[in-house]
Amino acid sequence: MNSNLNDNLSDFDTSIMQRVLELASQGTSTTQPNPRVACIIVNGKEIVGEGVHHMAGEPHAERLAIEQAGELARGGTAFVNLEPCCHQGRTPPCTDGLVDAGISRVVAAMRDPNPLVEGGGFELLTDAGIDVEYGLLENEARWLNRGFVSRMVRGRPWVALKTGATLDGRTAAYDGESKWITSPEARIAVQELRANSSAVVTGIGTVMADDPNMNVRIDGAERQPYRVVLDSHLQLPIDAQIIGTDQKLIVFTLSQDLDRVSALTEAGVEVVQLNDTSSGRINLHDVMAELSNWQCNEVLLEAGQTLSGAFMEAGLIDELTVFYAGSVLGDKAQSMFQFESPLSFAERFDFHIRSAEMVGPDVCLTAINQASWQTLVTKD
Amino acid sequence: MNSNLNDNLSDFDTSIMQRVLELASQGTSTTQPNPRVACIIVNGKEIVGEGVHHMAGEPHAERLAIEQAGELARGGTAFVNLEPCCHQGRTPPCTDGLVDAGISRVVAAMRDPNPLVEGGGFELLTDAGIDVEYGLLENEARWLNRGFVSRMVRGRPWVALKTGATLDGRTAAYDGESKWITSPEARIAVQELRANSSAVVTGIGTVMADDPNMNVRIDGAERQPYRVVLDSHLQLPIDAQIIGTDQKLIVFTLSQDLDRVSALTEAGVEVVQLNDTSSGRINLHDVMAELSNWQCNEVLLEAGQTLSGAFMEAGLIDELTVFYAGSVLGDKAQSMFQFESPLSFAERFDFHIRSAEMVGPDVCLTAINQASWQTLVTKD
Repeated sequence: MNSNLNDNLSDFDTSIMQRVLELASQGTSTTQPNPRVACIIVNGKEIVGEGVHHMAGEPHAERLAIEQAGELARGGTAFVNLEPCCHQGRTPPCTDGLVDAGISRVVAAMRDPNPLVEGGGFELLTDAGIDVEYGLLENEARWLNRGFVSRMVRGRPWVALKTGATLDGRTAAYDGESKWITSPEARIAVQELRANSSAVVTGIGTVMADDPNMNVRIDGAERQPYRVVLDSHLQLPIDAQIIGTDQKLIVFTLSQDLDRVSALTEAGVEVVQLNDTSSGRINLHDVMAELSNWQCNEVLLEAGQTLSGAFMEAGLIDELTVFYAGSVLGDKAQSMFQFESPLSFAERFDFHIRSAEMVGPDVCLTAINQASWQTLVTKD
Repeated sequence: MNSNLNDNLSDFDTSIMQRVLELASQGTSTTQPNPRVACIIVNGKEIVGEGVHHMAGEPHAERLAIEQAGELARGGTAFVNLEPCCHQGRTPPCTDGLVDAGISRVVAAMRDPNPLVEGGGFELLTDAGIDVEYGLLENEARWLNRGFVSRMVRGRPWVALKTGATLDGRTAAYDGESKWITSPEARIAVQELRANSSAVVTGIGTVMADDPNMNVRIDGAERQPYRVVLDSHLQLPIDAQIIGTDQKLIVFTLSQDLDRVSALTEAGVEVVQLNDTSSGRINLHDVMAELSNWQCNEVLLEAGQTLSGAFMEAGLIDELTVFYAGSVLGDKAQSMFQFESPLSFAERFDFHIRSAEMVGPDVCLTAINQASWQTLVTKD
């Protein structure tokens, strides 16, 4: 059961929860690995406290809202987009705070999929005599924390592929040249996508071709995502720009070359040696499980046709963000996805287009893998 | 010179011209081969007459507006999106009508690119003592009549390619299967595109594979576009559905098989035998010149990767309308454009994206060939 909403829930309740989700989204680029959470405390029809969780280790949203509300919290309703935590983490449990403050009703958007909570927060509140309702704007709340939910429910991050393409879906000319298909405006939007991700994943081919640093270049960015390179044969040059960046670089490899491993390790690189597979390719599910262990919620994939195709075939692309530029390169140019074998029409991959909007002269289209979304919303 | 606007042109004048363009667009699917034209007569600040040209052979917009205005036309201003005609066609010249009605000022969006008019209408009005201004919302007016302008200025129709594609730009699976990539909503939108075109062009490959009738299936459609099939070897079966449709079918061929030509001709098909080319392919410029002789303004191309690629390489695609569905078919599937040889990145074709909007679950993206547009706006 994902909801126990009362029939008498009002438009006012819904509008407050909408505001909670807006506030929570302020933490989109900073809270990871924590979920994005906000809390609003209402007494009568008046908002008496608002709190937004900003960063792991800093106070939770409920604590901040309670603090702001002070004595006005007593008898009030706390609106929160995620079930309040009931475990001692880096900060004390929020359930205690709500009980101590004299809150009489809690309205949550969704239960916490975290096995450490799993309805326990609601139970504790109910036991303390607080009315608990949940399920208000649940889908919106799950979308906001799709990475966190994915990690808790599926044991892997939510994977979004970002790509820039021509109108005919080509990501580079036949010889690999692609600088720049899309506009400066689109490239700025990509910075936002990176900033909102726990990790940015690419293949060694892209690193060898472009020597990118994959940094978030936004003024005031408070957190850099992990950089992740898939490098079967450990070809990463020791002077690659990506090594010198100010956040952890994780390299996945099948190589057993201990000299290279230790050279990279000494340069500060986290090298993860995976077991070889019969195909001689890195098992992408292993990579995702490992990134889940690293507490990655949302992962941004920025890769060429080979790696993008492998992720798609492995069923690992949950979300697609394509920036289409107004150009055409034709059938000999590089594809968005290279697959092992041709797909019949019936075998095509299905996505649900969420939006399409102009970004400068380009169009940014976002789509969700329907299967991924269904998994998220029903498996809890 | 494309404009002689006075400095004292007011917001009121602009808003009236906007209304003129809206009215004129009511004729989008019916006026061909005539341009889409509306006229509003204003006396003081009051609209005293409105007219919209509906169909060739029926009254011009100016005549209708004058009739509605009656005596109130005297001393008034006529706003019209195209220079009034000064030649006797199927209806008498509009310039005479405006002079006779006592109009004192004419504001036009653009000069008539028709060689039979070419500023002659303005000259005649000026000689009769009427103040003439033109160039107000000219680009919008040219866009509305891009087909007519193209035919007058370039001696060929304006060509729009319509295609349905996956997110990775694939129009069919490797084996050609493509029914249906896009949604019912997108297919309804395609009916509108056909209804607004003078002719719908396709290749014999599509006809052999799908046996389409390419009819406009819209309730109350008053005009069917010409159907045009490019069929080098005259393979069109005599029982093809496209032959039984209620508008002219024009088949372009290189074949000299007189038996087949006469069989098709007897079935009501217009067979145009073009001179063979060294490549053994139909010369697409010849086709366009011929369609211009048939007074085609806008041509809609609905074709597979081979013909679409040939049109693109010939520089004949002015406008692109792509319906993207939320699916992925991968690198072995059919392309949007097949070219003779690979394009380098610098050789890519450049379009300007005009819009992207949801149509049901799909995205409809429209883009213009920048070179085509520049030709239209400067060659007059």
